[in-house]
Amino acid sequence: MGKKSLHDSLPSASDSPSQQVVKLNVKWWGWGDLSKSYDLESRKTFVKFLREKLHCSGDVVQQPAPLDSIKFSPAKADASFVRSLINIFGLENVHVDDMDRFLHGFGKGYLDLIGAWKGTPGRLPDVVVYPTNEAQIAKLFDLSMNGDFVVVPYGGATSVVGGVDVPSGGQTAVCLDFRLMNEILSIDEKSLLADVQPGCLGPEVERALGSVGLTLGHFPQSFEFSSVGGWVATRSAGYESTRYGKIEGMVESVRLMTPQGTIETPRVPASAAGPDIREIIVGSEGAIGLITSVTLRLRKAPESKSYVGVLFRDFEDGVEAVRAMVQKDIVPNVVRLSNPSETEVSIVLSRRDGASYVEKVGGWFLKKRGYLGTSGALMILGFEGSNERVGLERKLAVASCKRFGGFSLGEGPGRMWYKERFELPYLRDELMEMGIMIDTLETATTWSQLSTLHSQIMAAFRGAFEALSVSGFAMAHMSHVYRTGASLYFTFMAQQLMGREEEEWHLIKNKVTDVIVASGASLSHHHGIGLEHVKWMEPYWGTLGIRILKSIKHELDPKGIMNPGKLVPSG
Amino acid sequence: MGKKSLHDSLPSASDSPSQQVVKLNVKWWGWGDLSKSYDLESRKTFVKFLREKLHCSGDVVQQPAPLDSIKFSPAKADASFVRSLINIFGLENVHVDDMDRFLHGFGKGYLDLIGAWKGTPGRLPDVVVYPTNEAQIAKLFDLSMNGDFVVVPYGGATSVVGGVDVPSGGQTAVCLDFRLMNEILSIDEKSLLADVQPGCLGPEVERALGSVGLTLGHFPQSFEFSSVGGWVATRSAGYESTRYGKIEGMVESVRLMTPQGTIETPRVPASAAGPDIREIIVGSEGAIGLITSVTLRLRKAPESKSYVGVLFRDFEDGVEAVRAMVQKDIVPNVVRLSNPSETEVSIVLSRRDGASYVEKVGGWFLKKRGYLGTSGALMILGFEGSNERVGLERKLAVASCKRFGGFSLGEGPGRMWYKERFELPYLRDELMEMGIMIDTLETATTWSQLSTLHSQIMAAFRGAFEALSVSGFAMAHMSHVYRTGASLYFTFMAQQLMGREEEEWHLIKNKVTDVIVASGASLSHHHGIGLEHVKWMEPYWGTLGIRILKSIKHELDPKGIMNPGKLVPSG
Repeated sequence: MGKKSLHDSLPSASDSPSQQVVKLNVKWWGWGDLSKSYDLESRKTFVKFLREKLHCSGDVVQQPAPLDSIKFSPAKADASFVRSLINIFGLENVHVDDMDRFLHGFGKGYLDLIGAWKGTPGRLPDVVVYPTNEAQIAKLFDLSMNGDFVVVPYGGATSVVGGVDVPSGGQTAVCLDFRLMNEILSIDEKSLLADVQPGCLGPEVERALGSVGLTLGHFPQSFEFSSVGGWVATRSAGYESTRYGKIEGMVESVRLMTPQGTIETPRVPASAAGPDIREIIVGSEGAIGLITSVTLRLRKAPESKSYVGVLFRDFEDGVEAVRAMVQKDIVPNVVRLSNPSETEVSIVLSRRDGASYVEKVGGWFLKKRGYLGTSGALMILGFEGSNERVGLERKLAVASCKRFGGFSLGEGPGRMWYKERFELPYLRDELMEMGIMIDTLETATTWSQLSTLHSQIMAAFRGAFEALSVSGFAMAHMSHVYRTGASLYFTFMAQQLMGREEEEWHLIKNKVTDVIVASGASLSHHHGIGLEHVKWMEPYWGTLGIRILKSIKHELDPKGIMNPGKLVPSG
Repeated sequence: MGKKSLHDSLPSASDSPSQQVVKLNVKWWGWGDLSKSYDLESRKTFVKFLREKLHCSGDVVQQPAPLDSIKFSPAKADASFVRSLINIFGLENVHVDDMDRFLHGFGKGYLDLIGAWKGTPGRLPDVVVYPTNEAQIAKLFDLSMNGDFVVVPYGGATSVVGGVDVPSGGQTAVCLDFRLMNEILSIDEKSLLADVQPGCLGPEVERALGSVGLTLGHFPQSFEFSSVGGWVATRSAGYESTRYGKIEGMVESVRLMTPQGTIETPRVPASAAGPDIREIIVGSEGAIGLITSVTLRLRKAPESKSYVGVLFRDFEDGVEAVRAMVQKDIVPNVVRLSNPSETEVSIVLSRRDGASYVEKVGGWFLKKRGYLGTSGALMILGFEGSNERVGLERKLAVASCKRFGGFSLGEGPGRMWYKERFELPYLRDELMEMGIMIDTLETATTWSQLSTLHSQIMAAFRGAFEALSVSGFAMAHMSHVYRTGASLYFTFMAQQLMGREEEEWHLIKNKVTDVIVASGASLSHHHGIGLEHVKWMEPYWGTLGIRILKSIKHELDPKGIMNPGKLVPSG
């Protein structure tokens, strides 16, 4: 499935850096396609909003460092090692040129992008290899018995927590890019299962499944660029997770190759045969081995889809409406409830050279009824499935909202959210041009804790902005809803402290994450651990938890070559 | 919650063995309450059926060995060790008398009961302790640093796979009975969570939750006698699992005390913080530590319940009807489809001094239409929840059945099944009196494999009966249904080979389990591993899988004191 064609389109070493990047269409300093950007031109009100909140000029004040200006450290890979790799993977699939190393050196975290913007990326991999089959991976592990190198697995590289960053340390770093292992190996339409290679990207998966009337139903915001292997390795969640669950529930079986051998978990819908080893491999973030195939649980493609907007007088009303709904077994595919600050941004962003969707409904009316102002909370509800079920769920869900004062805005806001659901990450790039720091973080907690935690985190952001003496702005939504609780997702922005960008980010991230972990909420609901969250793993799981994880790592990767520094603290 | 009253009703050492057992009302040689038995009197047709199929007399041919005749091996516990235990648990909670040891020596597996019937139980625990709090357990682990003993956790002791059996070996065996740790510690009605101690039995849990309008929704066949700790330690499934899932999905958080310390997993609805340690503890069967509390995910008590029967012309039609239904997201709480032999037994058992439910509907009519004879398959469908949802699900599910030729029998058979759902285990005791071996086993597989596996297992039973030259009978149902597959549950009966009962059982069990494991299906869907399935753990999980489990065990229980011989092969 595209294996050959992909490889043919890879730029050659004789291309200049800029030519290579243009060929790949990769926006190395931002999100997604180089040729794509978020439309701020038609959103003048939003720029005005930014000027007010962040006291920035709203003009473009910086550009990413030109590729040709970047100084690359030399690759630490001796010739005989590279020869061995070429022996294994073939000449065309072993790369040591600077541009390939640069493009494999980081993901999409704020710190990653800062490095890219400044032209000072962190450590780059020394060699990039593209395996095409498992036998090659086995040979790489054989080589590791004698060699002194580490392996950093690389899928779609959309990690926002440093998941693909190269570890510091003296060992040669081999980046293993799964891009050429991107086949759908088989589809069992009777059992609704597909065997998929880890390098398949979201659209490749859905295209293949869609052609036989099926869907995986997993749509993380990174969907267009992230890979199956990455989803499984990081416990990813899609926007339909409220009904369909996270990726861990979509894995029937998984195959893991480790330096000590290979394990494939039984292909069964459920088991009582002891601890679930599948749940050890899912979320292992490349730190114990390489996921080389996944058997995914599928669904029939939905007959119909319906997305609606509902406005609440305040966040609390919306939270209670959602809780009442899911605890009565009314489970929409999508539930996304913005807090007042995000609602404000959402309304402003929807005003494109004209009225926002709220104004179309009748802003004056909503204002009078108390829905607009400082406390309004916008909810997007999405329903997919059989016509009959979509109809019933929507009826019951909207009725539940009305009991808590929800005002139905109809399908307008729902349709707009659906249309733009993968676009928002592009906005970050435009903001960084204006000298604005922007990042997201997320957690999950029980219903009893949810409102308190929301307030505590919002306060922690304010405290951090104050400590830094910057104008900042934080907003949140609740999504990924469960019977016992939900996820909270935060976006925060502030003026960049030029020259101190990393320090600024760390201070905010630390303050907020300390609050999350102290409250007992999820260290991460779906971003994963990577490098950024490692230091909280022991407070989160406790000493014995870390000992369990380390004992597994030691058993499967005794020399510690797999993605060192990620997932668990080293040593 | 009943802690004191329970303990007060325990028999005293001065009671005679028979007095003690009568006080406890424990049927040590069979299922459940000593005062209860399955009504075969009014089911003469069933006895006739047994005579025909198994060529047995249908008369009572044996009785369990009288308690007073049993020779107990002396307890291997020296006085100073018992003194230490009394120091920790208190005099009233440390027992070394024969009857207490005997009643804690085995569960409800066929081999267990054979030992009880013959008055030749396997090795008994040397001491039985009843902890009342975690501090006592911590002190026991402290003691283990110097002492040479092993710990066998004991909940409701309903294991049918040797889960509470005492390991062979020279070490003093301490049976740790959780019966006095049976409190509901707290109920969070907002988050639908309850903190529960492991010794709580099913009815205690549901009584406490029911009083505030909630339910756990977990109803294994052992419900009346099994414990929360046992459910979680063995990955139990209840009859409503098709909608509500297995116990592993009902655990928000779990606390495990190990010889190396305690771990409590975060109390969160979901997490992306690496491998899920919760899923290592769930299913660990006491082999890495003791589960001392569980935070369970609850539901609102259902507004209404509806159970119906549907008859299919053959098993395959029923399987396809169920597959079509769940793959279209129509998910009843209960789906139970009997194969033709189980359908026959089911109809015969329902004929109590009168017509069976099928005859009431009109046996002649069904026969004529091809529903009765050698191939008919009875399905029970159960729906629980809000009135609206029960109505819709039932309508859609029954319509799906009709498309595959299902004939609705209405609520009669459904109601009867519901009423008697916890009664069937009592039937085993009556059959053993007639000299009949009876046991069950179960697995789960994908839809693509299901029919083939069902046929293969039925053939394996026939092959085993033939190899033993006994008249035997096997039957099955499909239940616990998933989008990608389902569980198959088998009941098998044969004349007991007197004096060779264990050999007879092992031959059948081995032949069938070899077929299951070779096919790649679940080694167990919900019975667990215990002692009986240990030898298949390595073929099932592979060498590396067992190494992972052993590395965890070694980390948490380096001296190997926790339930040795269970879960993973020793050594």
